Amino acid sequence: MSTAGQVIRCKAAVAWEAGKPLSVEEIEVAPPQKNEVRVKIHFTSLCHTDVYFWEAKGQNPLFPRILGHEAGGVVESVGEGVTDVEPGDHVLPIFTGECKECPHCLSEASNMCDLLRINTERGGMLHDGQTRFSKDGKPIYHFLGTSTFSEYTVVHVGQVAKINPEAPLDKVCVLSCGMSTGFGATVNVAKPKKGGSVAVFGLGAVGLAAAEGARVCEASRIIGIDLNPNRFEEAKKFGCTEFVNPKDHNKAVQEVISEMTGGGVDCSIECTGSTQAMVSAFECVHDGWGVAVLVGVPSRDDSFKTHPIHFLNERTLRGTFFGNYKPLSDIPGVVEKSWNWINSSLILSHSWISTRRSSTCCEGRVCDA
Amino acid sequence: MSTAGQVIRCKAAVAWEAGKPLSVEEIEVAPPQKNEVRVKIHFTSLCHTDVYFWEAKGQNPLFPRILGHEAGGVVESVGEGVTDVEPGDHVLPIFTGECKECPHCLSEASNMCDLLRINTERGGMLHDGQTRFSKDGKPIYHFLGTSTFSEYTVVHVGQVAKINPEAPLDKVCVLSCGMSTGFGATVNVAKPKKGGSVAVFGLGAVGLAAAEGARVCEASRIIGIDLNPNRFEEAKKFGCTEFVNPKDHNKAVQEVISEMTGGGVDCSIECTGSTQAMVSAFECVHDGWGVAVLVGVPSRDDSFKTHPIHFLNERTLRGTFFGNYKPLSDIPGVVEKSWNWINSSLILSHSWISTRRSSTCCEGRVCDA
Ligand SMILES: NC(=O)c1ccc[n+]([C@@H]2O[C@H](COP(=O)([O-])OP(=O)(O)OC[C@H]3O[C@@H](n4cnc5c(N)ncnc54)[C@H](O)[C@@H]3O)[C@@H](O)[C@H]2O)c1
Ligand SMILES: NC(=O)c1ccc[n+]([C@@H]2O[C@H](COP(=O)([O-])OP(=O)(O)OC[C@H]3O[C@@H](n4cnc5c(N)ncnc54)[C@H](O)[C@@H]3O)[C@@H](O)[C@H]2O)c1
Ligand SMILES: [Zn+2]
Ligand SMILES: [Zn+2]
Ligand SMILES: [Zn+2]
Ligand SMILES: [Zn+2]
Repeated sequence: MSTAGQVIRCKAAVAWEAGKPLSVEEIEVAPPQKNEVRVKIHFTSLCHTDVYFWEAKGQNPLFPRILGHEAGGVVESVGEGVTDVEPGDHVLPIFTGECKECPHCLSEASNMCDLLRINTERGGMLHDGQTRFSKDGKPIYHFLGTSTFSEYTVVHVGQVAKINPEAPLDKVCVLSCGMSTGFGATVNVAKPKKGGSVAVFGLGAVGLAAAEGARVCEASRIIGIDLNPNRFEEAKKFGCTEFVNPKDHNKAVQEVISEMTGGGVDCSIECTGSTQAMVSAFECVHDGWGVAVLVGVPSRDDSFKTHPIHFLNERTLRGTFFGNYKPLSDIPGVVEKSWNWINSSLILSHSWISTRRSSTCCEGRVCDA
Repeated sequence: MSTAGQVIRCKAAVAWEAGKPLSVEEIEVAPPQKNEVRVKIHFTSLCHTDVYFWEAKGQNPLFPRILGHEAGGVVESVGEGVTDVEPGDHVLPIFTGECKECPHCLSEASNMCDLLRINTERGGMLHDGQTRFSKDGKPIYHFLGTSTFSEYTVVHVGQVAKINPEAPLDKVCVLSCGMSTGFGATVNVAKPKKGGSVAVFGLGAVGLAAAEGARVCEASRIIGIDLNPNRFEEAKKFGCTEFVNPKDHNKAVQEVISEMTGGGVDCSIECTGSTQAMVSAFECVHDGWGVAVLVGVPSRDDSFKTHPIHFLNERTLRGTFFGNYKPLSDIPGVVEKSWNWINSSLILSHSWISTRRSSTCCEGRVCDA
């Protein structure tokens, strides 16, 4: 019996208050409206961004809310005007979207859609500003337009990537956030040449994916940099050939790298969120051709500071959002390419997924943050 | 009668002491040694860099010295091992060189030759560290390996660009420094698309050439920014369509530009040397695709400071040296292309050359600096 057009009652993990344990309860999910899709979530994982907004430090708190944005599912029903997906399609909901009409969507360079780019402050749907979630009539807010910590969720059609139904959803769900971000930062933005040298700052999930990108590009040296030496063993599986712990040196890490490489690496990818690492990542690239890519999300009051001569000496500094992937146009292809290597021995998907979990849950970040 | 192999006596403008008027006198110019070329200078112009090293503020003073680096001439004789040029060839001596063997020369991206890149502290020739200039036996130092304020000079063969002998030396001599720098910054590095918007910060010789580059790329809006409104009239001839004087606004110039353009320009080129302008030039480009290029030479203690979120929003910041042109490989082609437009009504070469002179001599920079 079809549930289309009906309110669905299902389980969700609801964040009622900042920093309080999520509680799993039965909620109501309204049918999708114009340009919306209702998705049955089969798998979801946890990312720091969920934790950050659950803690709600330094932002406008918006509760009760259903968090979650790294997930895979199947379309249950679609609202008015939706033609790109239909019930039964396998999809990844994505925290940033693609309207296919704005200057960003029409630009080859950008993936920062004017209509659907990430908006952490929005708690309702674009169409009417209302939420599709409620419990006993009380509205519950959306998060990033995805809210995947629910058995059913409602997402704008511009935020669902339709993927090959043969791709294993339990594995490819991790491609909807950090893994694509890190991998894309390397292959789409830094673009190391075969045989080149690459430095990856920060070996969390994003940095490991960035290192994997460097391996896929056949970089000859992939230097992993982290303050936490426990990350190094794991990072070997993702292609890192050498390691530097800034704490082991009494000079700046950019000098250490410059000495190791005879003047600097060909490119670097910063995946930490620390401005100190951002400056090091920039200053450690070779003059003449070095490219540094920033991925980490800084704090509100941070500042990036360097001597302008480092630019004049022909270094390039760029930042990237979601690895420069356009969520609808590109992610299906990323799934296509990577589900094989996620399954193969090259990347052990379980090590990947457990890394993802452990970096969030076991390494102290949740408590430190 | 050939002068090859002989000491040549000729006139030169010698800087005997920091900040003291140059004095024109007869000097001796020794024959070129291994990999060196002796050039009869036909035309030379004056650039700020000459003035800066003549004033010798904040550098190691090196006197007596023969300044000058924007020039055109004809090869008089060549030293051992020189096969790329021969007597009679028309050449532009260039302040930075190309050995064709080092990693930079072999890289497509870089023009910062390890052997011959600009070195302001060197007063002798690479071959033996000695100078080829003297007066009554007393050595006179070289400057940038070019020292064009002399009727004859000795230059490393990696620092002379052999050009079409039909190109008018009196005009194309300006291509050996600032003009190529500004033009190349736009066409080689910023690369505006047809119909795009461009901001040029600083409308001195370098900035005017940058604007001309934007016009050649068929940018639809070319916004010139200068603190000195007297520059605007001249800049119209080089393609600027609009002007902003930061002094006319009580908000940051990047905000003014962002409002004028609905979110920022597609690219900007900074040609001032002011770090404030560098930051504005970066922050005024559009998120998603904007590219900012730094050209101005900062002071030793300057610092570039911005919020890293401007990078994450997919802006790119690059610097360039000599417009990313490889002096020997590329400048002959630049001469080929531009001597027509230098002669044509598109660019009035006399307005160009007088701009170049006036920006140095009449606008107070020499006295202010
Ligand atoms: N730009 C985007 O689109 C995007 C998307 C997802 C995540 N991110 C950001 O990417 C960053 C990394 O995410 P993650 O999930 O991998 O985080 P994580 O916490 O799992 O990993 C970060 C790693 O960086 C290391 N580190 C911290 N400071 C360092 C320093 N100064 N030098 C060297 N190493 C240092 C930590 O020890 C840790 O191992 C975060 O800032 C996150 O917000 C950005
Ligand atoms: N990177 C290279 O290879 C290279 C080569 C040659 C020259 N340069 C540098 O390029 C810069 C420009 O050279 P030029 O010969 O055109 O100099 P210039 O003095 O003739 O012109 C500079 C212009 O910038 C304007 N200006 C100064 N501060 C400003 C500000 N904050 N905002 C707006 N306008 C401002 C001035 O009024 C002036 O008109 C210099 O710093 C020079 O050293 C670099
Ligand atoms: Zn995430
Ligand atoms: Zn869009
Ligand atoms: Zn110059
Ligand atoms: Zn070289």
